[in-house]
Amino acid sequence: MQLVNEYKKVRDRSIHICRPLKTEDYVVQPVVDVSPPKWHLGHTTWFFETFLLSPHCPGYEVFDAEYNYVFNSYYESVGARVIRTHRGNLSRPAVEDIFRYREYVDEAMLGWLNQDLSLELQQLVVLGLNHEEQHQELLYTDIKYILGHNPLFPAYGPFEQPAVAPAAHSGFIPVKAGIYEIGHAGDGFCFDNEQSRHKVYLQDYAISAAQVTNAEYLQFIEDGGYTDFRHWLAEGWDWVKSNHVTAPLYWHNINGEWFCYTWQGLQPLQLHEPVAHISYYEANAYAAWKKMRLPTEFEWEAAARQFNWGRRWEWTESAYLPYPGFSKAPGAIGEYNGKFMVSQMVLRGASDVTPPNHSRITYRNFFQPNLRWQFTGIRLAK
Amino acid sequence: MQLVNEYKKVRDRSIHICRPLKTEDYVVQPVVDVSPPKWHLGHTTWFFETFLLSPHCPGYEVFDAEYNYVFNSYYESVGARVIRTHRGNLSRPAVEDIFRYREYVDEAMLGWLNQDLSLELQQLVVLGLNHEEQHQELLYTDIKYILGHNPLFPAYGPFEQPAVAPAAHSGFIPVKAGIYEIGHAGDGFCFDNEQSRHKVYLQDYAISAAQVTNAEYLQFIEDGGYTDFRHWLAEGWDWVKSNHVTAPLYWHNINGEWFCYTWQGLQPLQLHEPVAHISYYEANAYAAWKKMRLPTEFEWEAAARQFNWGRRWEWTESAYLPYPGFSKAPGAIGEYNGKFMVSQMVLRGASDVTPPNHSRITYRNFFQPNLRWQFTGIRLAK
Amino acid sequence: MQLVNEYKKVRDRSIHICRPLKTEDYVVQPVVDVSPPKWHLGHTTWFFETFLLSPHCPGYEVFDAEYNYVFNSYYESVGARVIRTHRGNLSRPAVEDIFRYREYVDEAMLGWLNQDLSLELQQLVVLGLNHEEQHQELLYTDIKYILGHNPLFPAYGPFEQPAVAPAAHSGFIPVKAGIYEIGHAGDGFCFDNEQSRHKVYLQDYAISAAQVTNAEYLQFIEDGGYTDFRHWLAEGWDWVKSNHVTAPLYWHNINGEWFCYTWQGLQPLQLHEPVAHISYYEANAYAAWKKMRLPTEFEWEAAARQFNWGRRWEWTESAYLPYPGFSKAPGAIGEYNGKFMVSQMVLRGASDVTPPNHSRITYRNFFQPNLRWQFTGIRLAK
Amino acid sequence: MQLVNEYKKVRDRSIHICRPLKTEDYVVQPVVDVSPPKWHLGHTTWFFETFLLSPHCPGYEVFDAEYNYVFNSYYESVGARVIRTHRGNLSRPAVEDIFRYREYVDEAMLGWLNQDLSLELQQLVVLGLNHEEQHQELLYTDIKYILGHNPLFPAYGPFEQPAVAPAAHSGFIPVKAGIYEIGHAGDGFCFDNEQSRHKVYLQDYAISAAQVTNAEYLQFIEDGGYTDFRHWLAEGWDWVKSNHVTAPLYWHNINGEWFCYTWQGLQPLQLHEPVAHISYYEANAYAAWKKMRLPTEFEWEAAARQFNWGRRWEWTESAYLPYPGFSKAPGAIGEYNGKFMVSQMVLRGASDVTPPNHSRITYRNFFQPNLRWQFTGIRLAK
Repeated sequence: MQLVNEYKKVRDRSIHICRPLKTEDYVVQPVVDVSPPKWHLGHTTWFFETFLLSPHCPGYEVFDAEYNYVFNSYYESVGARVIRTHRGNLSRPAVEDIFRYREYVDEAMLGWLNQDLSLELQQLVVLGLNHEEQHQELLYTDIKYILGHNPLFPAYGPFEQPAVAPAAHSGFIPVKAGIYEIGHAGDGFCFDNEQSRHKVYLQDYAISAAQVTNAEYLQFIEDGGYTDFRHWLAEGWDWVKSNHVTAPLYWHNINGEWFCYTWQGLQPLQLHEPVAHISYYEANAYAAWKKMRLPTEFEWEAAARQFNWGRRWEWTESAYLPYPGFSKAPGAIGEYNGKFMVSQMVLRGASDVTPPNHSRITYRNFFQPNLRWQFTGIRLAK
Repeated sequence: MQLVNEYKKVRDRSIHICRPLKTEDYVVQPVVDVSPPKWHLGHTTWFFETFLLSPHCPGYEVFDAEYNYVFNSYYESVGARVIRTHRGNLSRPAVEDIFRYREYVDEAMLGWLNQDLSLELQQLVVLGLNHEEQHQELLYTDIKYILGHNPLFPAYGPFEQPAVAPAAHSGFIPVKAGIYEIGHAGDGFCFDNEQSRHKVYLQDYAISAAQVTNAEYLQFIEDGGYTDFRHWLAEGWDWVKSNHVTAPLYWHNINGEWFCYTWQGLQPLQLHEPVAHISYYEANAYAAWKKMRLPTEFEWEAAARQFNWGRRWEWTESAYLPYPGFSKAPGAIGEYNGKFMVSQMVLRGASDVTPPNHSRITYRNFFQPNLRWQFTGIRLAK
Repeated sequence: MQLVNEYKKVRDRSIHICRPLKTEDYVVQPVVDVSPPKWHLGHTTWFFETFLLSPHCPGYEVFDAEYNYVFNSYYESVGARVIRTHRGNLSRPAVEDIFRYREYVDEAMLGWLNQDLSLELQQLVVLGLNHEEQHQELLYTDIKYILGHNPLFPAYGPFEQPAVAPAAHSGFIPVKAGIYEIGHAGDGFCFDNEQSRHKVYLQDYAISAAQVTNAEYLQFIEDGGYTDFRHWLAEGWDWVKSNHVTAPLYWHNINGEWFCYTWQGLQPLQLHEPVAHISYYEANAYAAWKKMRLPTEFEWEAAARQFNWGRRWEWTESAYLPYPGFSKAPGAIGEYNGKFMVSQMVLRGASDVTPPNHSRITYRNFFQPNLRWQFTGIRLAK
Repeated sequence: MQLVNEYKKVRDRSIHICRPLKTEDYVVQPVVDVSPPKWHLGHTTWFFETFLLSPHCPGYEVFDAEYNYVFNSYYESVGARVIRTHRGNLSRPAVEDIFRYREYVDEAMLGWLNQDLSLELQQLVVLGLNHEEQHQELLYTDIKYILGHNPLFPAYGPFEQPAVAPAAHSGFIPVKAGIYEIGHAGDGFCFDNEQSRHKVYLQDYAISAAQVTNAEYLQFIEDGGYTDFRHWLAEGWDWVKSNHVTAPLYWHNINGEWFCYTWQGLQPLQLHEPVAHISYYEANAYAAWKKMRLPTEFEWEAAARQFNWGRRWEWTESAYLPYPGFSKAPGAIGEYNGKFMVSQMVLRGASDVTPPNHSRITYRNFFQPNLRWQFTGIRLAK
């Protein structure tokens, strides 16, 4: 029963996120990393149809056999996938068809969930809901990208920021050298990449209680941070130069004043807000300019109970790699996380658009170091 | 009064063409040469607003000042243009906004057209209508591309093919060497590239009364035409190899049978129809394989009253270059045609989707030799 | 006997051109259109081996069977070719090996030429010599590119400019409308693209007796010619912007003064010299700025006895297309010219680096409109 | 005095490596990661001139002021650099000029080294020599690439493989969980990235005493390893498909038999040799296929005294990141290693072409995961 309620809540939330959109906003894909909102709505539905209803619900008939081709993402096991770059060319299935697809699958799921399910199947449903929550975060960031790169700068509309507990500390929090336990423990849900829980040895370090703010980041810009190669990784410096980067994504300098595209359209930059939409290269360069560094993901996790977090995903100095004892689940579900473990950096925390209770202290997010369309920020270490 | 009626008729026809579309179909741009239908609707409207209402209708206020940025195409004189590749990323203005834009401009135009207009202004209106008719043709071909490259192969719906007069001849029509007059004469509308009328000397030649059919083109394919470099221009052979071309656009070989995407979705190939959707390279290679050649645009024009045409734009062996005495109009209107006079080949005739009475014997269409999304075909000469 | 002497003279001249080079200069290929000098030396030799010695000289053994793979250029009939972009990666065969290859083939050729040869074979030898002369011109322009794009700007050394007859006219030469004969006549050698000789009708026109000079072109630059889109073809304007073009190739503005890379290294710009190393786009834009145009290749040919030419290849307003009655020779030789008849513009005349007596009034050179590394210039018409 | 001898020995060895080359081989750059041999000879010399002679040897005059532009590599502090892709276009300075440059600098260095130098300067000389040794390794691998990608497959000539101590173990060596010290200790030379020495906690693991052989890798190929996405990282699978990879670099399947390009030209594959020239993606996929994994760099270092190594650089599962306490030296020397600490994987060990005594147990090499032209191999862990 709890699973039924959870299912309804999560599925409704995806629709809720899209409510302010016009039909046209569901369709476009301005860059390869952004997916059209209608694709997210279809893909998360396809997950339940493909991994739960088709194999485990007797008599279930797929809504449309061709949707597997359209809404499969990276699951090579399950069939040919649409090349990601092409998603923005597909005007069909229409948005209304995808809403009907959702209703069809939801009806079948709600019927099926009322039975006694094995623990394994229950876990697969929970995985599907966590998967949808990940896509809810992407829905927000992709919608922001689509609207924020339109020359008319349309507003998304009201957006309620999550409540974040006040900081318990200020300044830098010292942490003693020693052995720490890292990774997920206990019975609750976690992704495969959070396991197995294992020991790491950390040296003495200190980690900032607060995230870097727009005001602080502006000092970096005004000090010529984007024009002095000495702060930058070589790859980052190439990125700055070939993309003519001079500020975080969504910042616009109009007649000498800084504006920022927000859910309410173009607005004056809020100086006290934590900086967002920066690449790993920028986070790393900012830290170098401050003569500090970013924390590793282990340092972050070991200290995370002592500072408040949850408004920005925070770049760490750790590459995304398997934990000791990591193993992939068999079959298509096993493709979930492990196959991305190269050339990406770990982010820790959560952001303004992370679904409530979706993240946790052991949660590992990961992106290529050049990407900025997530609500990425900086916490310093030394 | 006639201009008012003509204005209404042409403007309505653009809407009519789009009637079978879903909102999503108006938005996408699968390749750079195809524009989103909503862009065509906005751009043709922008033409009337920018070149007629704003400068010549006292008191007219533009619908939205930002639309100039969105709907300008190649008119460098009038302001910054949206890079063509990016049109498919723009979800706003929404389709309904563009329809309101059309209504707003149409109302202003119809009021303004009721006055006594100078001949020059009348001619500019006629140019705007011919411009819109050109975009109507593109609307059709772009819609076909959008739907025909969707993995669901949705049908457009009913489509009435134009009536074409029966052929006066069959076989090859001989034409005697001598001096011929080429280019537009008389008072009717023509584009600047059809002038000035001038003499050319043609050698003896013969031109086919009929266009090449799908059945004939299939023989070329079955004879290995796409795998024998000797039939091809060097640039065409590179194009075949890098794009793995093996048949005209929209042809699909499914289990050994040829199908073709049409207005009614995927259908068995109609063998008696004239071949369509081929590049200049393919037209040239087919002619070489037949040990013939394509006609020049002058040969075509000198003989065009003796054969029927109007269902396929026909590739000629002529590059798109100015006629003797060609001169550009001053100002932005002067950018209309002359600036494209390099690296393109001339097409003559008209196609299934050319607006009625839009084309004429002196009409010159032109495209890069690799493009295939128009209804392009072949007429042979020798 | 005359053929033997001619053979020796042409073959020696290729070596003579390369004499000032260091071994390293023979190897590199800075851009795709430039070939390494050692490749030219090998390829021209391969022509004689492949088309004359191997099929027609009994007992001849090829120097190295693998050279066909390395030195074939565009002759698809004769085997797989090295992709042109990769020529600059090949350090072997070494330069000394290629010189031995030339000696080996020359010895065999000279023995074979002493026999009674059929007229057809004699013509094929002449074609091989004209082919080598074309590559001599490319040798010069490729060497200039290689040295002129080296940051040390090394000099090539002494270079004797061809004597050009003094102009018979000045100002613009008027030509009357009428029928003119175009194309090669008589017994002398010509390329297939110069035939067949045919009539064209030309309207009244006037053509400049002199070529545009550096001084005149500088006025175009100083008048903002490279920053005003109105002078440019759309494709040319894109080319200017994406390549940040602001002057002809080899021009360098150093502290406000114009320098030009020449055979003697970087030198102050010679104002009275005809402008060189410009693209068709630049030639066309210059003419538009002067409110004139470029001549067609027919206008050029009809008037060419009345002005002096020979120092710059002159861009014409004609696309490179077949003459009436053009036919390809059978076999690999037939690939010589016809396969390039799309997307190129015709140049007429000759240049500082054209071998003596190689060009003629009916000679047709051709390049893509963006290329500048030949000694290309401008003659105006109106 | 020891430094003088060491200087002579290292500098001579670079010349020795190049002795079998023809002048042409010094010039080319077939891919961006490979530098022309003459560039390596110049760049290593430029290091001594720029960082030692110019600032620290009174009265020293640079050999040629323009060489800084040509031979600077990544040192942004010291001036504009030649874009790496363009090195293969530079025929000048000629090889003989670079040899003269080396002699000129060597003479100055040997004079200067005879003085009493501060410890800091001595360390900078040692850094310069270790830098040159790194380029000696690249010289070998770049030469192999240049010759091995020539269609004539020329041999390099005799090559003496390094003696490697016989294995102390066979099978898998078990290592107990616990805290291990990682990083360089003691007075000897090390690179900045090997410091500071620090504790890590390792779980129980076992590491293979032997490297994977060609015979073992062949089983992976024959089992369809390159066609089953399940073994591959997503990025690796994209790499396989877009590059059509089916075997290690330099492997050629000729009529069903495997050959391998070696220092002696194309030779039958030696089955007992350790596999070489594979990407990280391939190493990772092979390990996944064996249901094992690659060791981390810490596991490797903690066990390295128990197995023999030195013939292949071994890919580890560690990304290249700074050690705790890592700090960059001030000035241009500080750009040495730290700026590459993103998007690269760590290699441990040494290879056939590593200079004697150049590597050590704490040495960290690093490359992008797709690169294969180094002598990279596989050691398994579990």
